[in-house]
Amino acid sequence: MMNRDVADLPSGPLDVYRNKASFSWKDMVRFIDGEDVYLFKVTQHVFRTLENDPLFARQPGEDVPIEKKRELTFLRMKQLLRYNFVTKEEAMANPWKAMYLDDCLGMYDWALVAKLFLSLGMFGATVANSGSSRHKKFVENTEDLRIFGCFALTELSHGSNTRAMRTTAKYDPSTQEFVINSPDFEAAKFWVGNLGKTATHAVVYAQLYTPDQVCHGLHSFVVPLRDPKTLLALPGVLVGDMGKKLGQNGLDNGFVMFHNVRIPRENLLNKTGDLTPDGRYVTPFKVRRFGASLGALSGGRVYITRMALINLKLALTVAIRFSAARRQFGPTDTEEIPVLEYQLQQWRLIPYLAAAYALENFTKSILMNFVEFQIGQMLKDNSDTAGMGREIHAIGCSSKPLGSWTAQRGIQECREACGGHGYLAMNRLGDLRDDNDPNCTYEGDNNVLLQQTSSYLLSWLHAKQRGQSSTRRIRGLDFLKNYKSAVSVYYCRSLALAYIEHTCLQRFHELTTNQDTPAGLRPVLRKLCALYGLWSLSSHMATLYQGNYWSGRKPAELVQMAILTLCSQLKDDAVALVDVLAPTDFILNSPIGCADGQIYNHLWSTVMQGSKVLERPSWWKEFCSDKPVLGSLRPKL
Amino acid sequence: MMNRDVADLPSGPLDVYRNKASFSWKDMVRFIDGEDVYLFKVTQHVFRTLENDPLFARQPGEDVPIEKKRELTFLRMKQLLRYNFVTKEEAMANPWKAMYLDDCLGMYDWALVAKLFLSLGMFGATVANSGSSRHKKFVENTEDLRIFGCFALTELSHGSNTRAMRTTAKYDPSTQEFVINSPDFEAAKFWVGNLGKTATHAVVYAQLYTPDQVCHGLHSFVVPLRDPKTLLALPGVLVGDMGKKLGQNGLDNGFVMFHNVRIPRENLLNKTGDLTPDGRYVTPFKVRRFGASLGALSGGRVYITRMALINLKLALTVAIRFSAARRQFGPTDTEEIPVLEYQLQQWRLIPYLAAAYALENFTKSILMNFVEFQIGQMLKDNSDTAGMGREIHAIGCSSKPLGSWTAQRGIQECREACGGHGYLAMNRLGDLRDDNDPNCTYEGDNNVLLQQTSSYLLSWLHAKQRGQSSTRRIRGLDFLKNYKSAVSVYYCRSLALAYIEHTCLQRFHELTTNQDTPAGLRPVLRKLCALYGLWSLSSHMATLYQGNYWSGRKPAELVQMAILTLCSQLKDDAVALVDVLAPTDFILNSPIGCADGQIYNHLWSTVMQGSKVLERPSWWKEFCSDKPVLGSLRPKL
Repeated sequence: MMNRDVADLPSGPLDVYRNKASFSWKDMVRFIDGEDVYLFKVTQHVFRTLENDPLFARQPGEDVPIEKKRELTFLRMKQLLRYNFVTKEEAMANPWKAMYLDDCLGMYDWALVAKLFLSLGMFGATVANSGSSRHKKFVENTEDLRIFGCFALTELSHGSNTRAMRTTAKYDPSTQEFVINSPDFEAAKFWVGNLGKTATHAVVYAQLYTPDQVCHGLHSFVVPLRDPKTLLALPGVLVGDMGKKLGQNGLDNGFVMFHNVRIPRENLLNKTGDLTPDGRYVTPFKVRRFGASLGALSGGRVYITRMALINLKLALTVAIRFSAARRQFGPTDTEEIPVLEYQLQQWRLIPYLAAAYALENFTKSILMNFVEFQIGQMLKDNSDTAGMGREIHAIGCSSKPLGSWTAQRGIQECREACGGHGYLAMNRLGDLRDDNDPNCTYEGDNNVLLQQTSSYLLSWLHAKQRGQSSTRRIRGLDFLKNYKSAVSVYYCRSLALAYIEHTCLQRFHELTTNQDTPAGLRPVLRKLCALYGLWSLSSHMATLYQGNYWSGRKPAELVQMAILTLCSQLKDDAVALVDVLAPTDFILNSPIGCADGQIYNHLWSTVMQGSKVLERPSWWKEFCSDKPVLGSLRPKL
Repeated sequence: MMNRDVADLPSGPLDVYRNKASFSWKDMVRFIDGEDVYLFKVTQHVFRTLENDPLFARQPGEDVPIEKKRELTFLRMKQLLRYNFVTKEEAMANPWKAMYLDDCLGMYDWALVAKLFLSLGMFGATVANSGSSRHKKFVENTEDLRIFGCFALTELSHGSNTRAMRTTAKYDPSTQEFVINSPDFEAAKFWVGNLGKTATHAVVYAQLYTPDQVCHGLHSFVVPLRDPKTLLALPGVLVGDMGKKLGQNGLDNGFVMFHNVRIPRENLLNKTGDLTPDGRYVTPFKVRRFGASLGALSGGRVYITRMALINLKLALTVAIRFSAARRQFGPTDTEEIPVLEYQLQQWRLIPYLAAAYALENFTKSILMNFVEFQIGQMLKDNSDTAGMGREIHAIGCSSKPLGSWTAQRGIQECREACGGHGYLAMNRLGDLRDDNDPNCTYEGDNNVLLQQTSSYLLSWLHAKQRGQSSTRRIRGLDFLKNYKSAVSVYYCRSLALAYIEHTCLQRFHELTTNQDTPAGLRPVLRKLCALYGLWSLSSHMATLYQGNYWSGRKPAELVQMAILTLCSQLKDDAVALVDVLAPTDFILNSPIGCADGQIYNHLWSTVMQGSKVLERPSWWKEFCSDKPVLGSLRPKL
């Protein structure tokens, strides 16, 4: 075995579980991270670097004003550029490095990841991919922070319906400029990350009008917003901050309205359409195949699935370590047992742990599909790009709902399973829930996205019924082969969810049976896989009965009993299983989730380290004087 | 008809729905509030008074520091004493007045209600009910704010298991004092509302030791904590603030540790046990019957059910008005339709609207049961107090989970159904979710409480099987008559939930068939009742199949189709139905939830009124100078 730089876990109240674990957590870490030692080292290096840098210091549960949160996030982002943990070249050579880095940073704070990504990734990559050589300077300037970018598509009154955007870009051939206008505030660009306080430039989506008043549809333009020397808004640009969000407040989301803002003709991102200097619209490139462009949109959704998973991992680490250390009731008044020993607590938490392992494998596997798809496109291997693009689109549209909802419910369950202590901000479950929440909404509302997946599945089915050959690369549709009866609109949502759960389960099952999977890990992985499958199935039991796949008492009872049995079998492994998923204590940032299981020590210390914890309030005189007279303001009748 | 002081609703984008409503919303308001015009007037008076008082001014989504939130809550609480909207005498004469007042104030801010209630209600009432005449001064001093109280039961390491509390009160006959001690910080009183910054006195639960070292179990004591003249902690009292919670941050929850704190013997609340001056333990009163005392505990849980309902009402008002005003997609590119017209949006929201109406009736009805039970106890009508107490306990233990979870899920659905705008703090769905969340936890974890209900149901059943006469007052158990097979532990949770849903539905059904229910309201109420019943049933479909009550495709299909049909039939009534439940715009405090449906106007105005919305950040120089050099901190290899 390789010598791995894994610090031993601290001893304490969790030992009793760790000693009972059926597998070696180090083996599991090695298996999950893959044999590429470098990835594990990246993770540990990032964690240690952040912990050693005072700029990244944490105070759990501290009441930080939004202005301060944004400043800190900006300063930390600058520092990340200095650390440059994974270079562009490294990321190209091994995309997992970039993903592991984002995973690590996301465990610290998603708003920080978003801030960096929106300028470099979203703005920079959109300019690079939708523009041409004349836009290269914008990309370069973004990389060294001479300018700071954002991506402005959504408007106040339009989100999902992107085609209905109303911002206009009218071409003025006399000056060879586009004139950008927001017809009214309902067409203000809204929800744009980085736009609130920091962006100097935006990719703006607007309806392109040629001088003959013909509208050529939505196009993207690079529009300067603020002077990079002063951060003051440019003339005609009404740009500002949307204010507090439920979470991710380190990121400054904002709005912008344009009043006759003039930009050079060259700022049109011209990959799919351009204007001649005299204002003629030309499409120099062939329109890309629809399926292929759908696939390209899916990258974000696939990674959001993983972001949600990471939030779930953190919440489970907190809740399971807490449940293993927290004792309540027991065989005698003096002897209490860990709450993890209670069937109810197991049933609440362990299925989510199984889901986390299923999603760990699944998110990597679909990200791999996505990378393969992109490489195929780059190599112009167009033989079946459209078909694969459509299936990746269908997976992205349903994996995001699966991941974000599983995390949403799992985090909430973890919050409740930790009782009052889960409601204390310092234990982080609230932040995890709030920071995870937008995963259900951005890049498409979950419910709306599921309709896209079910449409895809039904059209695949109809094509099959008509005997048309169906192009597929990924094996997620096999389960529809046994399709029999007509499918009603009501069931589209269930269909899409069953499809993605099935795909996720299938890939997890393959992992557990794969000969490359270490024999010592297979038993616990098989149990997790079975539990995930049965638990997912248990939410579809009514459908199975309804479709006459099941009848009578037995099937449901077997599923339920198997779930409870598996939970009970896995409870001694649960702590080791979260040890595998957990970051360092510094990154986890939850007193009740520390690796040593000293929940009360850490909780008490953190409370006592709080700001002004023992001080009387600054407004104490309000208690001691000006006593109210009961009813003195009551209207006299 | 009575002339009711109901301002007409403002016209705007919601007219199209209001004009299509099948009933008069004023009639519904009158019916729901009851014919007692006074209650309606109390509501309107409270709303108007708060709106006209600058101390209660609001700025939606403002980032208020916790210290400021607590100060504001305290000042507002003092002002409420001055307004004294409902006097003690009025509340005694008509308990609904007190409930309506709490409803109104809770719609404004639950932390404010809690702050007032914990001192006057929880501390004051506990002293009054558990003490004797010698404690009268504490109650009186609480009423005019000479002292400020809190209720200290939970300890850092013990919540649910109240008997395991470890704080001690050892009697010293030489000075006739109790000496209060916390053996270690794990026994610190924790989570105590009002204790963080303001309480001067606490009811402390501690193990009572007589000089002979005998422990007489948990007793309650009045313990001074802070000097009322200075708000500084008294010697031996380590008292402080727990810090930020997920919500309700206007309330200062705190902790306290005692180091040899001496209190007079008389501070023991001596209703069930007392000490003679020389330290002999005496129980002057008969121990009350267990069932009767269980009933008394239920009041809080029953009202928590209503608190949760009120949060759900507010969230639904926001989400349904938003859905009626927000347009997205449509038959043509230029014509868009309200998102409420989409089946999916109806299916997401309207069942929760039905649940809100069911719970509106149910919470009032069980609060009425509770009041009757209390009156029966006061009148010493003990004929069946224990039996009724047990059933009220079973209802309280399950109605709190039903209410708080329905609200939790409903608010989350409302948040998601409003898309990104639901994620903006100013629209209040985040605060509603966060403020509702502890309803799942305090006064008993929901899952743990459900076990108490199922135990009650099973013991009732076993008594019945043994032919023992069962004492009951409330008709919630009839549904168990048809009980046939053995019940497994797995199903206890479902049993308790089915019991309470059934009880809630039964009472709603009675309302819709009652001859006193106005004929013009019955059709819409019947639809809401049917939808609530079917929607609740739809979560138990697997159980019904499993138990062979159902088989084949039809039953589930009928339920699902009926749910969709009812949602569709109710969508034109949905706006009017939330108009009935909604407070004034000022109280609702959500730009996208205003009664005029001008969602974008209000949203935009509120954004523009935000603090420093257009200003560059105070730290703008951090962008303009000190540019990072990519990789400058990267270790050189």
